[in-house]
Amino acid sequence: MTTATPVLDALAARATSLDDADPLAPLRERFLLPEGVVYLDGNSLGALPAAVPPAMADAVRRQWGTDLIRSWNDNAWWQAPLRVGDAIGHLIGAAPGQTVAGDSTSVQLFNALSAAVRLRPGRPLLLTDPAHFPTDQYIADSVARLFGLEVRRIPAAGLPGFLAEEGHRVAVAGYSPVDYRTGELHDVPGTTRAVQRAGALMLWDLCHAAGALPVRLDELGVDLAVGCGYKYLSGGPGAPAFLYVAERHQAAFDHPITGWNGHSEPFGLSGGYTPAEGVGRARIGTPPILSLLALEAALTAFEGVDMELVRAKSLSLTGFFQDCADTLLAGLGFGDVTPREPGRRGSQVVLRHPEAYAMVQALAARGVVGDMRAPDLLRFGVNALYISHREVLDAVRQLREVTTDGEHWQERFRLRTTVT
Amino acid sequence: MTTATPVLDALAARATSLDDADPLAPLRERFLLPEGVVYLDGNSLGALPAAVPPAMADAVRRQWGTDLIRSWNDNAWWQAPLRVGDAIGHLIGAAPGQTVAGDSTSVQLFNALSAAVRLRPGRPLLLTDPAHFPTDQYIADSVARLFGLEVRRIPAAGLPGFLAEEGHRVAVAGYSPVDYRTGELHDVPGTTRAVQRAGALMLWDLCHAAGALPVRLDELGVDLAVGCGYKYLSGGPGAPAFLYVAERHQAAFDHPITGWNGHSEPFGLSGGYTPAEGVGRARIGTPPILSLLALEAALTAFEGVDMELVRAKSLSLTGFFQDCADTLLAGLGFGDVTPREPGRRGSQVVLRHPEAYAMVQALAARGVVGDMRAPDLLRFGVNALYISHREVLDAVRQLREVTTDGEHWQERFRLRTTVT
Repeated sequence: MTTATPVLDALAARATSLDDADPLAPLRERFLLPEGVVYLDGNSLGALPAAVPPAMADAVRRQWGTDLIRSWNDNAWWQAPLRVGDAIGHLIGAAPGQTVAGDSTSVQLFNALSAAVRLRPGRPLLLTDPAHFPTDQYIADSVARLFGLEVRRIPAAGLPGFLAEEGHRVAVAGYSPVDYRTGELHDVPGTTRAVQRAGALMLWDLCHAAGALPVRLDELGVDLAVGCGYKYLSGGPGAPAFLYVAERHQAAFDHPITGWNGHSEPFGLSGGYTPAEGVGRARIGTPPILSLLALEAALTAFEGVDMELVRAKSLSLTGFFQDCADTLLAGLGFGDVTPREPGRRGSQVVLRHPEAYAMVQALAARGVVGDMRAPDLLRFGVNALYISHREVLDAVRQLREVTTDGEHWQERFRLRTTVT
Repeated sequence: MTTATPVLDALAARATSLDDADPLAPLRERFLLPEGVVYLDGNSLGALPAAVPPAMADAVRRQWGTDLIRSWNDNAWWQAPLRVGDAIGHLIGAAPGQTVAGDSTSVQLFNALSAAVRLRPGRPLLLTDPAHFPTDQYIADSVARLFGLEVRRIPAAGLPGFLAEEGHRVAVAGYSPVDYRTGELHDVPGTTRAVQRAGALMLWDLCHAAGALPVRLDELGVDLAVGCGYKYLSGGPGAPAFLYVAERHQAAFDHPITGWNGHSEPFGLSGGYTPAEGVGRARIGTPPILSLLALEAALTAFEGVDMELVRAKSLSLTGFFQDCADTLLAGLGFGDVTPREPGRRGSQVVLRHPEAYAMVQALAARGVVGDMRAPDLLRFGVNALYISHREVLDAVRQLREVTTDGEHWQERFRLRTTVT
């Protein structure tokens, strides 16, 4: 089964026209993407920035191998968590001195939620989204257990209503701007206002937002934020996470993982913990410098990039994806998941299909890389720094071919016979 | 001022003879040390193993750049924390399935001490060494505060006496085999027995032991252990740490940083935390893969290496250092810090001198790298995998020259005039 040429031709012409007019198109050269691959999984692991391999070689051979221990000073390893933090802060609307890079999102969440609870004593509730990424829910449960509090799972849409009733009992609300499964973008300013009006603290998990769309932490008066370095920031597998602590909260930011790197005099080696001034107190132990320097090099891909243009292109890519899907996947059993309204869309498009798993495998065999989330979601992320409209069309066209040619059935059969 | 040639000649002859008979001498080729440097700071940052640069290049270019997201399966990134954990376990006397690599020592300490407190409910005391590395003390204080317990700082030597009186009230004792300042090696078997006889749990911080001397965790029946990857394991700056949980404690190991990587079905994405079976439950968030793979490559430097031979050579090196110091530094104002008895010595030699700081700087300018710990300790670590007796003699000889020529005074003057 093939698609009428005129339909494809029209989509191809539109893709070409959009790509030709794309002011961000030259950024693709800042990434090393393998030949023949359409990479729509940058929302899970960002592609390799071209700046990383030489930076890593230098970090390993010269900084570690030759300069050895003195690199902590001479190559400014010691300052890396705050330096990289500020570089991330620049992309999420945070003035310098409020963001620290290091550890994993889970660890940062643990410290941030615990500190939030201490900033709001006497309030027994932690709020989170029942659709939140699991680790956010697990950590909320764990922090609640430690402090004798209670977690309430309130969908983002129901938050204003809940807060009107119970807001005075809420210590902190931890949500994500973008639903990691559906790609829905929530109302970040409205939610922040509603939570703060109730006297609670707003914690945003920016894993699916940082580097994908403008986040105006300072402007919105957000209290706390965390996020990972390996999705749209393209910092490498398991790249260090980050934590944002609004300046006004720093002096009272009292977190439980009091590692020596957060001490006011880390080399004074005193037996009692006195936190550093500023966001540096949120540092924990010795950070994984190689991964941190890879992230730092990766962030140079954003140099001179206007996040408003990134957002505009991202919406153009996801909107075009939806148009292609409407045209090419009609009648093939796909369900629509991601909102159509641009203001409610993150930087991914999600489709529903009962054969999602096998389809994603069959697509990967063709060089189109997306991923799936159980039980039936196909997820395609677009990173506006390196994805083109032509690639989006190519992905949808190949998904159509996989489906109409029954390749996913073959894939499913192969999986059944090879996986025990 | 020069030293009589016969004295130096005798020491040089002994160094040559010891090096010639050294069965570990060929291991030096497994490290890339810069020319003209005597590196006695491997107890702070291990030297670069030759296996690391190609492994890093492969991890960056092929695994991340080309294989992209599928590396989690195809290049076994997902298994790395347990695989690297087992490789470390092999060096510390832990059978497979009890050690996990990841995060920092501070984070691992936090999880381990918290879990220990939950394993010993009703016991209000946490013990630690007043001479313990600061982060161990800070984290103990923080855990005690969270759980409403009390930290008692008891010197390792006074532990048996304290336990005889108060042992029934102790939940966990966290100590280090080696004093990071003095280089003194404590009685690991005796302390472990005394703590456990009191019904408490024994947690060892192996930062200054792993890779430096045999640690027999399983044989001694140790309960918990942590350690870093960047000292004698030479895993790179800020290399991931490790956590050992004895098999018998794993089913009840209930730690507070419940990240999604420790879930029994991490990709089931359920909203409630069910810990994985085994030590895998101690995994937290997504680990920094580049740093983790650097550590894994570094550990290949230990392949086929008998830790008993490492210990024997380490003692030979530190003993020879002490002999050289006795001969060459006599009358120059140095105080002895590290014990003379081999059984009470870790893998470093520490000297006391009021001008320690300037001396270490002046030595570094000559290519002899040690470090200092305030206020007056000069610290020289020996890694038996890449340090020779000739280098030890060279270091002490140069320290003599620095002192007798007054180079440290010049260094001190320079520091005073350049540091504001």
